[in-house]
Amino acid sequence: MSHEWGTVAVVGATGAVGRELLTILAARGVDASRLRLVASRAGRIAVGDASCDVVAPDAFDPAGVDVAFLAAGADVSRAIAPRLEEAGAIVIDNSSAFRHDGDVPLLVPGVNDDPMPRARRFANPNCTTTLLVTALDPLRRAFGIAHVDVCTYQAVSGAGSRAIDALRDESRARLDGAPPGATAFDEPCAFNAFSHDSAVDEGTGVNGEERKVIDESRRIWGDPRLGVTPTCVRVPVVRAHLLAVTVTLTAPAPVDAVEAALRGAPALRWRDDRRRNSFPTSLCATGRDRVVVGRLRPDPGAPDSDCDPVRYCLLVAGDQLRTGAALNAVRIADRAVRA
Amino acid sequence: MSHEWGTVAVVGATGAVGRELLTILAARGVDASRLRLVASRAGRIAVGDASCDVVAPDAFDPAGVDVAFLAAGADVSRAIAPRLEEAGAIVIDNSSAFRHDGDVPLLVPGVNDDPMPRARRFANPNCTTTLLVTALDPLRRAFGIAHVDVCTYQAVSGAGSRAIDALRDESRARLDGAPPGATAFDEPCAFNAFSHDSAVDEGTGVNGEERKVIDESRRIWGDPRLGVTPTCVRVPVVRAHLLAVTVTLTAPAPVDAVEAALRGAPALRWRDDRRRNSFPTSLCATGRDRVVVGRLRPDPGAPDSDCDPVRYCLLVAGDQLRTGAALNAVRIADRAVRA
Repeated sequence: MSHEWGTVAVVGATGAVGRELLTILAARGVDASRLRLVASRAGRIAVGDASCDVVAPDAFDPAGVDVAFLAAGADVSRAIAPRLEEAGAIVIDNSSAFRHDGDVPLLVPGVNDDPMPRARRFANPNCTTTLLVTALDPLRRAFGIAHVDVCTYQAVSGAGSRAIDALRDESRARLDGAPPGATAFDEPCAFNAFSHDSAVDEGTGVNGEERKVIDESRRIWGDPRLGVTPTCVRVPVVRAHLLAVTVTLTAPAPVDAVEAALRGAPALRWRDDRRRNSFPTSLCATGRDRVVVGRLRPDPGAPDSDCDPVRYCLLVAGDQLRTGAALNAVRIADRAVRA
Repeated sequence: MSHEWGTVAVVGATGAVGRELLTILAARGVDASRLRLVASRAGRIAVGDASCDVVAPDAFDPAGVDVAFLAAGADVSRAIAPRLEEAGAIVIDNSSAFRHDGDVPLLVPGVNDDPMPRARRFANPNCTTTLLVTALDPLRRAFGIAHVDVCTYQAVSGAGSRAIDALRDESRARLDGAPPGATAFDEPCAFNAFSHDSAVDEGTGVNGEERKVIDESRRIWGDPRLGVTPTCVRVPVVRAHLLAVTVTLTAPAPVDAVEAALRGAPALRWRDDRRRNSFPTSLCATGRDRVVVGRLRPDPGAPDSDCDPVRYCLLVAGDQLRTGAALNAVRIADRAVRA
């Protein structure tokens, strides 16, 4: 499909999400001569079998760009998005810069792109939010959702390429006998689980990642009163997030119907084998397009009742860089170009 | 205190919990000549500066044992506990063998040992349960608890010494470029988060670890209708568990009072610095006696209200082998010998 897009810019091309975007574009057979790559450090980078120039932001000329992916942080997005739009480009921004701008659709294709909003600029949600709403949207459509409790087991890749290197380096040092030491986060990341590294609001105690999950889920689903209780934690995993979710439906629903809604969703892969203890894991989602769901069970802690359950627990896993970020951006571009 | 105990047997002395028991006994200055160590493989083992014989279960004579710690699994406990009791020993069992036996107190000293039950045999709870009830007991006493939602980030050490070795070996192999491979669990444990390895009930979908958390919390707190919604997950961490807890009190309570109850509890260490993003982590609890609590915040997903919050989120961390198992067993022995 990429040939329909014309000239494609990737800003932040050498970062973790930027590289994943290039992997997806290369797999789609994008013409490397139509790519304009931008990163803080200029040079050359492999894209599939080709090699492409990378220019610094100052040297970047947006003239002629048809579709631009921004994956270099909110400040860069705010500076460069208006220039790209003036040049006529469709802009898909992976940062948090425009996620609360009412004029910029916050989009998860398959969840809230029907009808497709008319716009030239789109915001790609936070990766955890994208995975969460993708997994739960079939339940929202079929039964309605009143409240979501979610605890995350987040890969270090959300903090960028540097964090992936840090996890490897710290792990190797520990295995060689070194004491724990923090290198990329405030806490050591090797063999440790720790509260998410985003800033914590001093008044509420909610961290930035949790705030995004709350606000963006409500915006994507158009339900400002939706209950969302997130606890975001990093674990020593490279690039896929696992989510432990307890969802309270708006009315009781039978187990078979809840399972059928999840199993029938094309964006999801069902992994739920109780005999073999085979459920969603970080690794089984790594590098895959679909969000993995399973371990579905009625809340065992609810009072016994003759009614169908209203509260369900499940596990959700998704590749944070791919499904949670780059692939969603590409899907937005597909929809925007066709609209 | 150990000199008060007389002759002490440790069954399962070479396992992960057994070794932790010996570390604690050595630090208390126990006389190595009064130790009787039992393990499936006989030999010798270091205890502090001394070296002690380890005998096989068949060769073990319980005569003369005053206090026995059983840490070799439920089947061994069922076989050996009656023999030890006939010989006059106080028995503290770390397995699940007697946790639902109404004649055997299931004890967490500081939580449910007042009054101290009169018995010769005691059950040590599941490690996750011990950490959870220790952390939340101050809130139960001060405000009452209606429901506990808990997602666990569990160290591999709960599956024994072999699992600790497997985490190290798998991690090293991955760092050296090998593909993921499972060696100790059904799933790879290096750089992966996966549903707890205990057997999953085919009817309810609840796994064995979650069932223990539900049933044992209710028994320890004497509240058979307590709501408990656990999701138990393993993460690539060596020996401390992190728990993400959302607790619903029986009535609204002000934030200051909830914080004060936790900060004033002698069994807990408070770690909650929002500016420095410093909260309970797996590593900060490793090797420590006290359970670490922090990241306390009112549930941000609850509807806005003028009342005090009734639902609070917090993080809890504790050394699974030490605080969650061996130290609790030693504390039970202290209380039982004095009773």
